[in-house]
Amino acid sequence: MTDPVFPRIAIIGAGLIGSSIARAAREYGAAGEIALYDAVEDVRTRAAGLGLGEVAPTLESAVAGADCVLLCVPVGALGAAAAAAVPAMKDGAILTDVGSVKGEAARALSAAGDGRIHVIPGHPIAGTEQSGPEAGFPTLFRGAWHILTPVSNGAPGEAEALARLTAFWQALGARVESMDAARHDRVLAITSHLPHLIAYNIVATAFDMETVEQGEVVKYSAGGFRDFTRIAASDPVMWRDVFLHNRDAVLECLGRFSEDLAALQRAIRWGDGDTLIREFTRARSIRKAIIDAGQDSRAVNFGRNAPGAEE
Amino acid sequence: MTDPVFPRIAIIGAGLIGSSIARAAREYGAAGEIALYDAVEDVRTRAAGLGLGEVAPTLESAVAGADCVLLCVPVGALGAAAAAAVPAMKDGAILTDVGSVKGEAARALSAAGDGRIHVIPGHPIAGTEQSGPEAGFPTLFRGAWHILTPVSNGAPGEAEALARLTAFWQALGARVESMDAARHDRVLAITSHLPHLIAYNIVATAFDMETVEQGEVVKYSAGGFRDFTRIAASDPVMWRDVFLHNRDAVLECLGRFSEDLAALQRAIRWGDGDTLIREFTRARSIRKAIIDAGQDSRAVNFGRNAPGAEE
Repeated sequence: MTDPVFPRIAIIGAGLIGSSIARAAREYGAAGEIALYDAVEDVRTRAAGLGLGEVAPTLESAVAGADCVLLCVPVGALGAAAAAAVPAMKDGAILTDVGSVKGEAARALSAAGDGRIHVIPGHPIAGTEQSGPEAGFPTLFRGAWHILTPVSNGAPGEAEALARLTAFWQALGARVESMDAARHDRVLAITSHLPHLIAYNIVATAFDMETVEQGEVVKYSAGGFRDFTRIAASDPVMWRDVFLHNRDAVLECLGRFSEDLAALQRAIRWGDGDTLIREFTRARSIRKAIIDAGQDSRAVNFGRNAPGAEE
Repeated sequence: MTDPVFPRIAIIGAGLIGSSIARAAREYGAAGEIALYDAVEDVRTRAAGLGLGEVAPTLESAVAGADCVLLCVPVGALGAAAAAAVPAMKDGAILTDVGSVKGEAARALSAAGDGRIHVIPGHPIAGTEQSGPEAGFPTLFRGAWHILTPVSNGAPGEAEALARLTAFWQALGARVESMDAARHDRVLAITSHLPHLIAYNIVATAFDMETVEQGEVVKYSAGGFRDFTRIAASDPVMWRDVFLHNRDAVLECLGRFSEDLAALQRAIRWGDGDTLIREFTRARSIRKAIIDAGQDSRAVNFGRNAPGAEE
């Protein structure tokens, strides 16, 4: 067995992602020691019971001595977590996160940075609709993309820090890419944020239909609706923060989505079958492109093949 | 082994559903002889090559002598198929279909009925995003609902015909329910038709974003978008017909969906996190209701666990 990438890591936030990192880091030998902290006492107790690592009583004691601190909290909580972590971190350590909005993560983490540590925001494109320390599993990141959005300030050791964080995620099975935070946020607005908003919305709409019984919606959900309910089961606080912090990109996508939907609505109203066929055929070809790109043969889909998932 | 429910069935349309019925009927002994016909010569050739049954050269020769004729064609093609089938059917035989819009199916099949046969429209709530005779598999209907929307005209043998068709679908593993066609169309508009329209639309929207490269949409599709592309890969002709023939119910759902989405959009724009949390939490509880109802432990999900599917 090779040496771990980091002798010691600290994971702040022991939910689905944080607990999966703990499990994966141990399973694949990516970290020597694993310290964990969660702001919720009950979560700390459960994380300890699960044997996820050394559960620390305070955030500061968790990050002390860590070579890499991973903030696994909702985007809106990154600023406070980073501000608490940085003064307790050792010189030259890496501060990263797993938030879905990288512009805000870069802002929050950089604001807390004091020049002694390396700030490298990151985002694993992996997850399930489950939450909590019990929901994590070590293979969550295998084959998934992990996007780093480093902000260079020319500090000494910067390149080496980026290389080590890359090696850490690769050890967990991820494929690592670097890109600009703004570009990340535009891409994820359409591939992740808008789909989640749509899923939440259609589920709510379905349950407000007076002409249909809720029991029937549940009973006959296999026709397509069920896939939306799965996505819509994701953590509400996490997603609230995503929408509030990636507002402009989400609103841009949403405006276009509504415009396109109005065109389909008009085609249905006027019996314009040619337009429907044309648009549906185009959408189908996009699916084919995704399959051809090999995206869909991955074990790590959103929620599929997740050990312990209810499906 | 018990006697088959029907000594002979005829399947018109050898796509995903038709070929799955053929496979399931043989596998579970629900039919003695299986005749098939498809309007497309190439599909007939492939169906014969797959050994799905006796592939007939004409629709009339396929239905001749059959105790039950199953029309497995798009909703818009039901009228012509029924008109061609009925005169060739034997007295007392059953004419059914698998279309997703039961009001139109009842109209089309009843218009072709001549009083000698039993018309019983039906709809299996099962499917995958795949199409064609190769896409079918015998377990597609296991655990899935099959909805019958019988229209009573008091003809002799009517109750027995309904009981036999029910037994046939139960033999294929389905859970059979009867309901009014209009009610079916209202329920399916929200649980199936609207989700498909939304999925088609978001995929098209994503690929029209100039600010994002299409390759990036494909690459990072695991964040939620991929689930939509799968639904959007469904057969365009079938879905065009669904939307055109269930127009009023779909437009009603669509209007409410857009209204609800506008409320979420406004909450995002004005930073109203409380509204987002409230709506997201509500959607999540609906998912829980579906899991509690045992809907999601079924082997027959939409596209999941489908043998030969690419996932």
